[in-house]
Amino acid sequence: MPAPIDFYFELSSPYSYLAARKIGDVAKLYDRAVHWWPIMLGVIFQTTQNRPLMEQPLKADYTDRDVRRVARDMGLPFAPPVAGFPFASHVGARAIYWAADQEEGADARLAVALFQAVFERGQSITDAAAVGRVADAVGLDGAALIDAVGMPAVKDRLRAANDRALAAGVCGAPFFVVDEEPFWGCDRLDHVERWLATGGW
Amino acid sequence: MPAPIDFYFELSSPYSYLAARKIGDVAKLYDRAVHWWPIMLGVIFQTTQNRPLMEQPLKADYTDRDVRRVARDMGLPFAPPVAGFPFASHVGARAIYWAADQEEGADARLAVALFQAVFERGQSITDAAAVGRVADAVGLDGAALIDAVGMPAVKDRLRAANDRALAAGVCGAPFFVVDEEPFWGCDRLDHVERWLATGGW
Repeated sequence: MPAPIDFYFELSSPYSYLAARKIGDVAKLYDRAVHWWPIMLGVIFQTTQNRPLMEQPLKADYTDRDVRRVARDMGLPFAPPVAGFPFASHVGARAIYWAADQEEGADARLAVALFQAVFERGQSITDAAAVGRVADAVGLDGAALIDAVGMPAVKDRLRAANDRALAAGVCGAPFFVVDEEPFWGCDRLDHVERWLATGGW
Repeated sequence: MPAPIDFYFELSSPYSYLAARKIGDVAKLYDRAVHWWPIMLGVIFQTTQNRPLMEQPLKADYTDRDVRRVARDMGLPFAPPVAGFPFASHVGARAIYWAADQEEGADARLAVALFQAVFERGQSITDAAAVGRVADAVGLDGAALIDAVGMPAVKDRLRAANDRALAAGVCGAPFFVVDEEPFWGCDRLDHVERWLATGGW
């Protein structure tokens, strides 16, 4: 079986949410697995010297309009929190690495469920209790999760993922790597799909 | 006839070049005119507090790879200057406003020819003599152009265009406005086309 698609994402990124809702289907079409890598976009921004789109004059207004238009185009619901955005997502990100160790596919299931909580129901997932409730709802052990996200070994997984992302040239989120070819942005999903279909151009 | 498409672009932007090679065909399909607005991305960046992609760590490497891949995907040549990039494009931009007053369509013709000089033949267009030669080659009066680009009235056209862009929410380049709907980026050409076809979604 060919290499999995590396999918780097940030839980507080609306475009990452949109990509997360589609990447599994795209990968399945071409018999690929997806490796889910939640990362901290704030860490990436320390290297790129960038800031969240929603804190940039003009870009904030444009992005708010664009992301809603893209969501409608993709046929996906979009109802993010009205306040406290972007939010600290490290607890959710750590939980996804914890979930990866529980059972096959649990990381993807928890990641999508967390994205849906935020961007489809406008919920906050900044604290461990909230993340635990989402985990419970998708058949994981929320109480065990709450314990795990404070453990050094789990924290290290997230740190290592950020390092891996930087080493792979990840300059934003969502970011995909298909057979060493990098693709940045939800609007590169079409290129990702064509790359999978054709082997590149 | 419905309103023209406003097309804001920066002559030193590779993605603007790619968009400039396509927007005319897209517009024609839907019986639209294109209003060509060269702007100074540096002025926009003063408001968005952004910097050229090629000066941002990680993003520079990614962008270099991405823009070549997009060009191949679009079937367009891409051989930009190896040095001196991004470059000061105000002389070329002023020349395009001057050309608009010479004859119908001369601004689009000159803009595309300048983009081709830079991104298909790797030429410099920073000085008036170089811009004049490109103008001569597309049937405009290069000598008159060289005089014109130093004139206050022509300089004011470019300043007014930058102001207009900021007022319209232009946060980068290329940027399109179709019936008051804004689209940013060469990778939104598909949305521009669908918006023209459907009236929006």
